[in-house]
Amino acid sequence: MFDYIDRGSYDEVTWNRNRDDLRALTLRQRVMVDVSRLSVGTTVLGEHWKMPVGIAPTGLTGLFHRDGEIEGARAAQAAGVPFTLSTMSICSIEDVRAAVEGTFWFQLYLMRDRGFNAALLARAREARCSALMLTLDLPLQALRRRDPKNGLSVPPRLTLANAGEILMRPRWLAGVLLGKRRTLGNLAAFFPKDGITTLSEWVGGQFDSSITWKDVAWVRERWPGKLILKGIMDPEDARLAQTTGVDAIVVSNHGGRQLDGATSTITALPRVVEAVAGRCEVLLDGGVTCGQDVLKALALGARACLIGKAYLYGLSALGGEGVTLALQLLRQELEVSMALTGVNDVRNIGRQVLAG
Amino acid sequence: MFDYIDRGSYDEVTWNRNRDDLRALTLRQRVMVDVSRLSVGTTVLGEHWKMPVGIAPTGLTGLFHRDGEIEGARAAQAAGVPFTLSTMSICSIEDVRAAVEGTFWFQLYLMRDRGFNAALLARAREARCSALMLTLDLPLQALRRRDPKNGLSVPPRLTLANAGEILMRPRWLAGVLLGKRRTLGNLAAFFPKDGITTLSEWVGGQFDSSITWKDVAWVRERWPGKLILKGIMDPEDARLAQTTGVDAIVVSNHGGRQLDGATSTITALPRVVEAVAGRCEVLLDGGVTCGQDVLKALALGARACLIGKAYLYGLSALGGEGVTLALQLLRQELEVSMALTGVNDVRNIGRQVLAG
Amino acid sequence: MFDYIDRGSYDEVTWNRNRDDLRALTLRQRVMVDVSRLSVGTTVLGEHWKMPVGIAPTGLTGLFHRDGEIEGARAAQAAGVPFTLSTMSICSIEDVRAAVEGTFWFQLYLMRDRGFNAALLARAREARCSALMLTLDLPLQALRRRDPKNGLSVPPRLTLANAGEILMRPRWLAGVLLGKRRTLGNLAAFFPKDGITTLSEWVGGQFDSSITWKDVAWVRERWPGKLILKGIMDPEDARLAQTTGVDAIVVSNHGGRQLDGATSTITALPRVVEAVAGRCEVLLDGGVTCGQDVLKALALGARACLIGKAYLYGLSALGGEGVTLALQLLRQELEVSMALTGVNDVRNIGRQVLAG
Amino acid sequence: MFDYIDRGSYDEVTWNRNRDDLRALTLRQRVMVDVSRLSVGTTVLGEHWKMPVGIAPTGLTGLFHRDGEIEGARAAQAAGVPFTLSTMSICSIEDVRAAVEGTFWFQLYLMRDRGFNAALLARAREARCSALMLTLDLPLQALRRRDPKNGLSVPPRLTLANAGEILMRPRWLAGVLLGKRRTLGNLAAFFPKDGITTLSEWVGGQFDSSITWKDVAWVRERWPGKLILKGIMDPEDARLAQTTGVDAIVVSNHGGRQLDGATSTITALPRVVEAVAGRCEVLLDGGVTCGQDVLKALALGARACLIGKAYLYGLSALGGEGVTLALQLLRQELEVSMALTGVNDVRNIGRQVLAG
Repeated sequence: MFDYIDRGSYDEVTWNRNRDDLRALTLRQRVMVDVSRLSVGTTVLGEHWKMPVGIAPTGLTGLFHRDGEIEGARAAQAAGVPFTLSTMSICSIEDVRAAVEGTFWFQLYLMRDRGFNAALLARAREARCSALMLTLDLPLQALRRRDPKNGLSVPPRLTLANAGEILMRPRWLAGVLLGKRRTLGNLAAFFPKDGITTLSEWVGGQFDSSITWKDVAWVRERWPGKLILKGIMDPEDARLAQTTGVDAIVVSNHGGRQLDGATSTITALPRVVEAVAGRCEVLLDGGVTCGQDVLKALALGARACLIGKAYLYGLSALGGEGVTLALQLLRQELEVSMALTGVNDVRNIGRQVLAG
Repeated sequence: MFDYIDRGSYDEVTWNRNRDDLRALTLRQRVMVDVSRLSVGTTVLGEHWKMPVGIAPTGLTGLFHRDGEIEGARAAQAAGVPFTLSTMSICSIEDVRAAVEGTFWFQLYLMRDRGFNAALLARAREARCSALMLTLDLPLQALRRRDPKNGLSVPPRLTLANAGEILMRPRWLAGVLLGKRRTLGNLAAFFPKDGITTLSEWVGGQFDSSITWKDVAWVRERWPGKLILKGIMDPEDARLAQTTGVDAIVVSNHGGRQLDGATSTITALPRVVEAVAGRCEVLLDGGVTCGQDVLKALALGARACLIGKAYLYGLSALGGEGVTLALQLLRQELEVSMALTGVNDVRNIGRQVLAG
Repeated sequence: MFDYIDRGSYDEVTWNRNRDDLRALTLRQRVMVDVSRLSVGTTVLGEHWKMPVGIAPTGLTGLFHRDGEIEGARAAQAAGVPFTLSTMSICSIEDVRAAVEGTFWFQLYLMRDRGFNAALLARAREARCSALMLTLDLPLQALRRRDPKNGLSVPPRLTLANAGEILMRPRWLAGVLLGKRRTLGNLAAFFPKDGITTLSEWVGGQFDSSITWKDVAWVRERWPGKLILKGIMDPEDARLAQTTGVDAIVVSNHGGRQLDGATSTITALPRVVEAVAGRCEVLLDGGVTCGQDVLKALALGARACLIGKAYLYGLSALGGEGVTLALQLLRQELEVSMALTGVNDVRNIGRQVLAG
Repeated sequence: MFDYIDRGSYDEVTWNRNRDDLRALTLRQRVMVDVSRLSVGTTVLGEHWKMPVGIAPTGLTGLFHRDGEIEGARAAQAAGVPFTLSTMSICSIEDVRAAVEGTFWFQLYLMRDRGFNAALLARAREARCSALMLTLDLPLQALRRRDPKNGLSVPPRLTLANAGEILMRPRWLAGVLLGKRRTLGNLAAFFPKDGITTLSEWVGGQFDSSITWKDVAWVRERWPGKLILKGIMDPEDARLAQTTGVDAIVVSNHGGRQLDGATSTITALPRVVEAVAGRCEVLLDGGVTCGQDVLKALALGARACLIGKAYLYGLSALGGEGVTLALQLLRQELEVSMALTGVNDVRNIGRQVLAG
């Protein structure tokens, strides 16, 4: 499960670029600015966020910790930032809705069976999800080389093959085994009739690889709330997205887990922002693991960042408490970095914080 | 034997460049293109290939697995791509001809003894090889430093010096020892009369280092089928090659195994393509180990790629089944990468898939 | 304690840049210049230094060796270079004053309690400190990830958790435990009433994050001696600093221990020097660990360098004797490098020693 | 002793650059050039060399193998290339003269005692050395950090401190201990009266750091043979050297063992060649460890290369036989690289073999 969280597709060229290109950006140190009152709150899609960091949709999250999605959503709500529930979650939309106060976001993959998509949209509306995030960059699933090696399957199965290692972490094992939910909550109907299959094969059978911009229109008609398109990396696609009445886009290469060889998201960001020209909000994910990364993304035009790995480590280790801690650390890092670049309101971050 | 497959000459500067320069190229992620029907079939030298990847000539292949060349040729045929039999093969032209349906390609080194070359050409014609690939970049053999250390000789000898390691792989050992063929099938007449010699010394004695473009003409006169020149890296040589009535060239630095310090093949490719100006087809080998590499080479003007290491790993581990698997993985990687760069026909791949 | 000396904040991007960017600069080798009389003495703020290297303020120094600040100050004086006593020192201003002949410098952090700052200034005046170095780049404290892991606290506590390691270094342990001083000498009044806290939390509670240029004026009024501002990295701040009547600035990013992602100091130096335009002296710290680094900094316009780590290693290992040795090594490296770049007086070092 | 051969001064920045910058140069692969007759012989200072590679002066060579300098000189002569005897050799000029037929070169450091220099020049004339190589880049000795750690002293002493390691190499130990010569043959008169000192201190006491171009004139008057200046890296120094009637210069940074931070020699070479403008011959040393390096240096204007480490490894392992082998490998590498860049006479190597 650690490999599933941690790494990218194929040779992990893009996965490394996401992080390395963020690191390579240089900040301007400024001094003697009154930073006794730092404000990191912002507004995204009309909602107030206590900091410019939301939680990205991540698959199989309930396997990392008992009721993982519920724990994540609660911690996000407590921190004043949105949680995005993945189509591929262990806890279903209804599970999370029942356990968590306030709102959350829902992420959608378009399946070959449009009836099922319509049903998912209805369930998300019913659950009062305030935004729908449609993922565009998984028409086919790229290979994460460690997944087949680790025996990742649908529905998920836990074996004790590496029992030695697991036994050293009894709390984690108990958390998963004793949890009520051990399958993909939103998708149970789609499971193979005759036992298990690999994750990759299952995706190939169910996901719709024929989707085009007109399918975005199909979703737009059925979703009255905010609509976010995730997986835009190219200025041309950013322009095309504007024709669909979308509220926001996420500059994303699926965390370096789809097209290996793709540009890093931080490199793609400024060109996408330019192409969007203010017509919708622009978020970014991919390689964001510290507050300095958030500062850099905002400097290049992102409204906010989404994190995956950065909260999953916390969730896996300590449950919701770990998510809270991860968000706190990001916030502190962002505050310190703002203070040392002489900015005291997150809404004033711009290119002036970058050197050269 | 692993070292013979795996590494390059001298300090392996070029060997590393081949791979690193391919990795460094950046792909443009595109979304919302209907990629439900991906076509990776193409036409090379008038033959239909099911994917733009052929099998390069590799020496001593029958030592990696019993009847290695036959296993490779069968797997290639099943996958709908060409197999190139090396002059330096363990199985002879006739062995492969007898065991494999359909056609295959033959690779030729020019020896000092032109009579032998004429005989080889006649044998290849007799075997109905559809194309002859003349290798230009081995007038002298460069040193692969691990070969003398590993005791590589002509004719090949297996010793049990490292018996501990070999015994751990009994299937492999049995495969080689029980195979009928344990020598260089095409070249037995050329072996040293008085026992064994090093591979390097034998090449020095037999290969013709005086060859010039007029020798290509000599071959052209004796070979009625398609003629391919392998080892062109320079635009000037690419232009000279056009005067010989050649049907295709392979941009190759012998997999980083000859001139250490040479440009990577992917760097040389666009300049060679420009110099050729469409007068013949251009293939590429060197460092191609995944479908993304194939996509990049096609984007820069290659008609198809040839693979060496990428199929030999499979062959060594699992015989023909391993070659099939290697070709499948390359095909899947190419398909996923095409889908995520928004191209659904391999013949439409161009510079538009590359960023920057 | 080794980690506290040795490393930087967060991912140590800036910490690495400081050193790497110094290394990357290239020197011009010159020959046949009479270098039999090399002079490395210079004048900084009107004081004669025997070499262009002073000792930077470093916190908790008395924990690395018994009476660490006193040992450091004595060794510096013997070597003819200034020692800067940190606000965060173990030995107090008065301790050092009583134990050391001659003068030393004092470094100041501005606290929320201005009365305490005024008192510190008075104590430094009383101790005849010849210069005051006001640190600007710590309005908030960045996280050095190893500190909480190592349990660094205020007031400092020594535990025997890693007794195995400590027992191997009995001399060091005895040095610290038997020293008279085991707390922050200048700051005892500020300690938490109810026991210990983390270093980071304590700084957050006491340090003033609202300081602006007008607070520099407040200090300037109360300090009749030389005034140095430490932490200037930006040309704009360098220009603003000139309005405060400052005598020198230190180009510093707190040794890569505050803003992670900041430019390296050697990269910032020439732009700051240009902005200052000779109106005050410019010093540099950050990553200076050998005489070649000093040569490079002087070539780009620094009057002198300050060292932290480079003397703390010596102090930790051998006390004052180690500091003497460290300064000797730096001097020898500087002399050899001057000789080999054809400069025989440190005051003549300029861009002519740099290649390209 | 391995460290003394193998590494550079201080942080080994220049030592690494010498090798890395050679590696980074890219060669143009050419094909179909008749390379059956490769000629690597050349003329340097009017002497015929069988290959464009001479042996650089290296100190303490007799400690690596019994009679090391004699073994090296004999092997060089057999290979048809010059051997340069260092002032700091174990075997004296007379030892080598008595044991070796034909001529060799002598390298000179200028000492404070000019009478001794005059005597050395007379001894070298008496020994019929055909060229004198005056080293310019050691007015002070830089620190090779491993030397004091390894206890390198003058006169050299062998201790059995690491007896375990030495006992594993009994042949080597016997070679040194049973050799007749165990001191610095040319310099015995200069040894400290009262026992041993470090190499570094001894050099500091004896070498003249006041030398300027007029001292070259002093040597020029006393040396009727060919005069070579070693240690020129700067175009300005290259121009100044032309005023001294010198016959050749060696672009050298003492193998990365003096000014740490200096440009690599291969980077300095073309600018020096341009400044010399054909008025004398230009040689290069530093990082040359394979025939490809030689090809690259000649392509950028060097007449020939000198090798240090590349022959000392061979000498240390196998005596003269090892030197012969090292020279053979270099020759083969050069020949193969020439063949694959389409050059068949070493005198025709030029920029045309370099890519881009």
